[in-house]
Amino acid sequence: MALHPDMPLRVVTLGGGTGLAALLQALKCEAERPEQPWQLTGIVTVSDNGGSSGRLRDELGGIPPGDLRNCLSALTREESILSDLLSYRFKGDGSLAGHSLGNLMLLAMVDITGDWVKAIRQLSGVLVTAGRLYPSTTVPVTLCATDIEGHAYAGETAVNETAAPIRSIWLEPEAPEPLPEAMLAILRADVILLAPGSLFTSTLPNLLIPELRRALQQSAAPIFYVANLMTEPGETSGLDLDAHLQAIINIGGVKPTAVLVNNLLPSAEILALYREEGGCPILPSGPAAAGIPVVAEALLDLEATSARHDPAKLLKAVRAMIRGR
Amino acid sequence: MALHPDMPLRVVTLGGGTGLAALLQALKCEAERPEQPWQLTGIVTVSDNGGSSGRLRDELGGIPPGDLRNCLSALTREESILSDLLSYRFKGDGSLAGHSLGNLMLLAMVDITGDWVKAIRQLSGVLVTAGRLYPSTTVPVTLCATDIEGHAYAGETAVNETAAPIRSIWLEPEAPEPLPEAMLAILRADVILLAPGSLFTSTLPNLLIPELRRALQQSAAPIFYVANLMTEPGETSGLDLDAHLQAIINIGGVKPTAVLVNNLLPSAEILALYREEGGCPILPSGPAAAGIPVVAEALLDLEATSARHDPAKLLKAVRAMIRGR
Repeated sequence: MALHPDMPLRVVTLGGGTGLAALLQALKCEAERPEQPWQLTGIVTVSDNGGSSGRLRDELGGIPPGDLRNCLSALTREESILSDLLSYRFKGDGSLAGHSLGNLMLLAMVDITGDWVKAIRQLSGVLVTAGRLYPSTTVPVTLCATDIEGHAYAGETAVNETAAPIRSIWLEPEAPEPLPEAMLAILRADVILLAPGSLFTSTLPNLLIPELRRALQQSAAPIFYVANLMTEPGETSGLDLDAHLQAIINIGGVKPTAVLVNNLLPSAEILALYREEGGCPILPSGPAAAGIPVVAEALLDLEATSARHDPAKLLKAVRAMIRGR
Repeated sequence: MALHPDMPLRVVTLGGGTGLAALLQALKCEAERPEQPWQLTGIVTVSDNGGSSGRLRDELGGIPPGDLRNCLSALTREESILSDLLSYRFKGDGSLAGHSLGNLMLLAMVDITGDWVKAIRQLSGVLVTAGRLYPSTTVPVTLCATDIEGHAYAGETAVNETAAPIRSIWLEPEAPEPLPEAMLAILRADVILLAPGSLFTSTLPNLLIPELRRALQQSAAPIFYVANLMTEPGETSGLDLDAHLQAIINIGGVKPTAVLVNNLLPSAEILALYREEGGCPILPSGPAAAGIPVVAEALLDLEATSARHDPAKLLKAVRAMIRGR
């Protein structure tokens, strides 16, 4: 697909909290390109029920703000007092302790403006962000799962800590209406990126929304999956790259055009640290599921004290994938 | 005192929550005057222990943010999303219910910047305010009182609801260190205004800080007291204008240069409403205490459904007092 160089490239990313925020942070400078700037859109999963988000959800109802707030922070163009406020967390052990001020600001803005799209747009305006953000749905949903031993789990926090491999996973309600803005962004996208992040609790929940899944299937844009660096104890223990792709295809109903995976092993110290908790590196070993091309690059941040993507390397690899689409 | 027309007129106002905020709101347009603009400074009492402020004070320690936040809102130059956020209050009946988001933003900013002056300056910058604000002290203080029947009261809320007339009133600790910026503002002021507001719980607490009182006594600036419209049941039941001035002189240790008082009676409906709760109009009746000149003007807002100063009339009267100083 050849685009006019003056037209922005519509890059739509999907995921949850940390992984999507890290991807947006790495990509946001592309919104400033003089030629064919990227128009970044983040579609954020809203099944979180832990921490400050979970408490706010229990107390005030509605969808949890935390993942949206993380992404809003990530898209902020420059450091400002407001971005400091957005990231602030109350200390101590009282009723406010652990609450994120940004979560409270987002929820207040939703109450003032009457809807999530306006609230995020308003905050994006004063914060000056490099892209747009949408919750995948504004229906309060609960992520549910059973494992192969027959245990049932309700809520993202529980699903993240399953005792045995997950057998089935679904949302309650099963078919929440997606946000029209999120649907449109997918249908008009030039490129779609599935962000790294927890497979069952960040990547799949968006794909479990039937209409959103259909939009992804209908979209003419290539869908690139940025694989995780490590497995997560509980949720993805023992799952290799192939198993991740199988889950996205079989459970999520979406077949990625290609997958980007790290090929650099973390240091022995970091590996030992993860191994203690049950985390293993996800590497480009074995044939990819259903013949999906695997793009292997050194994406690991060698300076970090934990396994994380190097933002510059990630940007370079994503840029190359998009150029070659 | 003749000032060069290009030099700003340094107008320093003192008070608490609502009354000081209303005065600043009425005066703020003077910061935009092409000739001799007013440099407005608000010095805000910090003995509040009720509502959201009181809960935050109990939970997080430090000084209560509510009165400062009200004044920050009042000084905002234009309506913005941020001023909406600053004024937002959480609903419902959970742990957040009733909390002011602005209070939380102020306290977070104090934690981020490490001090109140920086925190208010930062927020004033992003909100674009028409003046500066200082807490009178950053030492957590408790307002204490006894009444003529010997009952003791601790905390602003209790002092506001005394069962009998107040006999003595003091701060604990008795001599908290005032904020240096507040001291300097008073010493350099061209005009000082004691804002309307609760006599014992808003006006006097600032004057009970010994060093701040001394600065007011030493300042060469005239001190104008803007009297309240009505007495408050409990705190000032039965006190007339003269009794208010006596309290400011004898308890506060400060002799106003003149007092501005309303001479327009509220409507019969509004009077009846106040009378039910024990509130009476404060009018320029009788000779003023210690020969203080009384300036009587029609200051009442005739459109309002409660007794409140008309901002335009208040501004006009304050302007005239300042011109004639």
